[in-house]
Amino acid sequence: MNTYDLIMKKRNGNALDKDEITYIVNGFTDGTIPDYQMSAFLMALFFKGMNDRETTDLTMAMADSGDRLDLSGIHGRKVDKHSTGGVGDKTSLVVGPILASLGVPVAKMSGRGLGHTGGTIDKLEGIPGFKTAITEEAFIDQVNNVNLAIVGQTANLAPADKKIYALRDVTATVDNISLIASSIMSKKLAAGADAIVLDVKVGTGAFMKNIDDAKALAKEMVSIGKMAGRDVTAVITDMNEPLGNNVGNILEVVEAVECLKGKGEERLMKVSKTLASYMLLASGKADSVDKAMEMINEVIDSGKAFEKMKEFVEAQGGDSSYLDDIDKFEKTEHERIVKGKDLIDFYGLSADKTYYLSECNNEEIGMTSLILGGGRRTKEDVIDLSVGIILHKHLGDEIKPDDTVAVLYGNVVEKTDEAFKRFVNAYKLSDKEVVKNPIVYDIIEG
Amino acid sequence: MNTYDLIMKKRNGNALDKDEITYIVNGFTDGTIPDYQMSAFLMALFFKGMNDRETTDLTMAMADSGDRLDLSGIHGRKVDKHSTGGVGDKTSLVVGPILASLGVPVAKMSGRGLGHTGGTIDKLEGIPGFKTAITEEAFIDQVNNVNLAIVGQTANLAPADKKIYALRDVTATVDNISLIASSIMSKKLAAGADAIVLDVKVGTGAFMKNIDDAKALAKEMVSIGKMAGRDVTAVITDMNEPLGNNVGNILEVVEAVECLKGKGEERLMKVSKTLASYMLLASGKADSVDKAMEMINEVIDSGKAFEKMKEFVEAQGGDSSYLDDIDKFEKTEHERIVKGKDLIDFYGLSADKTYYLSECNNEEIGMTSLILGGGRRTKEDVIDLSVGIILHKHLGDEIKPDDTVAVLYGNVVEKTDEAFKRFVNAYKLSDKEVVKNPIVYDIIEG
Repeated sequence: MNTYDLIMKKRNGNALDKDEITYIVNGFTDGTIPDYQMSAFLMALFFKGMNDRETTDLTMAMADSGDRLDLSGIHGRKVDKHSTGGVGDKTSLVVGPILASLGVPVAKMSGRGLGHTGGTIDKLEGIPGFKTAITEEAFIDQVNNVNLAIVGQTANLAPADKKIYALRDVTATVDNISLIASSIMSKKLAAGADAIVLDVKVGTGAFMKNIDDAKALAKEMVSIGKMAGRDVTAVITDMNEPLGNNVGNILEVVEAVECLKGKGEERLMKVSKTLASYMLLASGKADSVDKAMEMINEVIDSGKAFEKMKEFVEAQGGDSSYLDDIDKFEKTEHERIVKGKDLIDFYGLSADKTYYLSECNNEEIGMTSLILGGGRRTKEDVIDLSVGIILHKHLGDEIKPDDTVAVLYGNVVEKTDEAFKRFVNAYKLSDKEVVKNPIVYDIIEG
Repeated sequence: MNTYDLIMKKRNGNALDKDEITYIVNGFTDGTIPDYQMSAFLMALFFKGMNDRETTDLTMAMADSGDRLDLSGIHGRKVDKHSTGGVGDKTSLVVGPILASLGVPVAKMSGRGLGHTGGTIDKLEGIPGFKTAITEEAFIDQVNNVNLAIVGQTANLAPADKKIYALRDVTATVDNISLIASSIMSKKLAAGADAIVLDVKVGTGAFMKNIDDAKALAKEMVSIGKMAGRDVTAVITDMNEPLGNNVGNILEVVEAVECLKGKGEERLMKVSKTLASYMLLASGKADSVDKAMEMINEVIDSGKAFEKMKEFVEAQGGDSSYLDDIDKFEKTEHERIVKGKDLIDFYGLSADKTYYLSECNNEEIGMTSLILGGGRRTKEDVIDLSVGIILHKHLGDEIKPDDTVAVLYGNVVEKTDEAFKRFVNAYKLSDKEVVKNPIVYDIIEG
């Protein structure tokens, strides 16, 4: 077998067999296949695609390229969740305690990544004392005791994916369904859960900009799961504006607490409960979505889910009193209020008419958070966990000049000013009523 | 400008402007653009192509990446010739002396390359004393005195092409018309001639396997020439079997001498004269092809062309007495005769019927020459200049068991045996009469 022939084979539109795909993945990971051949291969793949079987073989080869987490020490059926990423997405912090309080073991290993806010473990580090670096043994013990642990990634999971992703990122070969699906699924398969519920985001703040692409990605990942013998469900949800009200690290922890107390923003609650219900179904603890919803509402209404959140935080060394009294969290130095008038003036509109929030460039809201200091541009950046945005209005809402649209929380005046400009620019107003987007578009079951 | 955006732009099917193309060529040549981005770009280009203007910009950027030969010291209109390569192609050795004897200055700088035989300068080195390494000054003086000089490439012509070609060669991005055309034309433009006649080969022994591809390549190169202000004509000729009778280095010099004495094989004479006639037209020395043909026949019949060959060889230090008496050339140790019977037996046919040579896998004939030792697999290989093949039959010829089809000349028994097997395997027989291929398919004028 040689790399040149395999590049040519894919370039000419032919399917590669399992051995050929494994040869490429292993060769690139161990350095025997040079970057320049891999990038030519990836570009050929971008144009010619891969069928479902090839995509699964690629996923398995990447999943097998490093460690696989051994979760066999955890009792019961392990269910994992993964989101393709979006602005204000704190559902893991809501869903984890709900599931755990219903007896489902949730063992989550999470990376930090780059982006407009930190990852789930960055957010949790906003709780004083919370430790995200614990041993694999302690991790498994905690899941057995509390049913929930969320830790930083220590194991060498799917190193092939890491190396391939870095190359795709600089060679314009990121946006291909097979490559995206295999990248996500290789890490999930290596992370060892029995069942996986995927939250595939679609919209201006998501990687997938339209429903068709999101569905194609969802179907591809469900197909990989099926071929790999895992139970995978994908929920396609809206990301045309931030999810919920809060964007930022500590702000998102605070909003998750509100949700667990049953006082969360409507769309965020809907997504969280939908994800949780399919996870419950996959765990075998519920036999229908309706039954699952009933169980979820019960643990929220009874306070069991919130108590589980506190128990989990304590188990990882965090001070759960912050969750009881969110005013204890560190405050930012500045608040900058965005009024309806600011948007109306920006667009040179008349202050006498009625307007509606009609469009949100959600990536720009992410940029606003990043500018405030809430995210990382490079791995070395230090996140300011306290900064962020609280939205008071959502798409479709009526906007009057005196309405508060949002409040920006920052610690550096110049950054807050820049963020303000960016934020105002991200929304559009219409003088006609606007139909709100659905929040859950579709469910793709395995 | 950044490389990622340019890869993406080409990937998405958009045309790049001149500055963008120059940025890529220069960045890759000076090492600021890494191999892995260039190979992704080349694969995107493979799929999305380039328009004529882009291809010309690419050619010019590569031509400008190193030295340009300054031929201004040569009197008159300089005409160059280039062949896309084939088996038994010794037309430069025929055409050069014809043109020179008609007063057209021919200044040829030639690489050695890899392949089934050496390049033109390897062949010339088969003449004892012949020097291919001379100074640029001596080169120009010789063209002014003799009208003909053929030397090894000393100047740093189109280094971008060299580097890009090496990358294409290992990333399955060789066979794209824009890339092939710009590679050839960048070197030709840097080599400084006023007019260029291209011999675009088509067939089983050529890079272009079918007429449509050959025409597309020819048109692309003529278009580049036009945009670059050079007079370019392309002649599309047959390469479904070796050109002429002899394949090998010294053997091809010998056959060129036969041509210059008017005793060359018919198809070889036709190609040589056609190329020479368009070069003569381009030089301004003839005003029609008919007139050019008349002039060419005159210098062959009168012996002037042959005398010019000897003068040129002497000017470069070679012993021209070898051309007067070709028996002086070194002989090989072995001759292996391929009889009609060998082919008939190989295909298990009846010896009683009449057969015709119907097909030739011409690349395999090239391999036969390479196995005998006549070519280079790697730059370091030393060519055995004396070995090769003399064909006694051509496609369409009748084959009887006792007919000599070819004679293989070798110096190592095992190689000669291996070459014999390869040679027999390269031809097919038919019991029906076979229509001979045309030798000149088309002329594309600028």
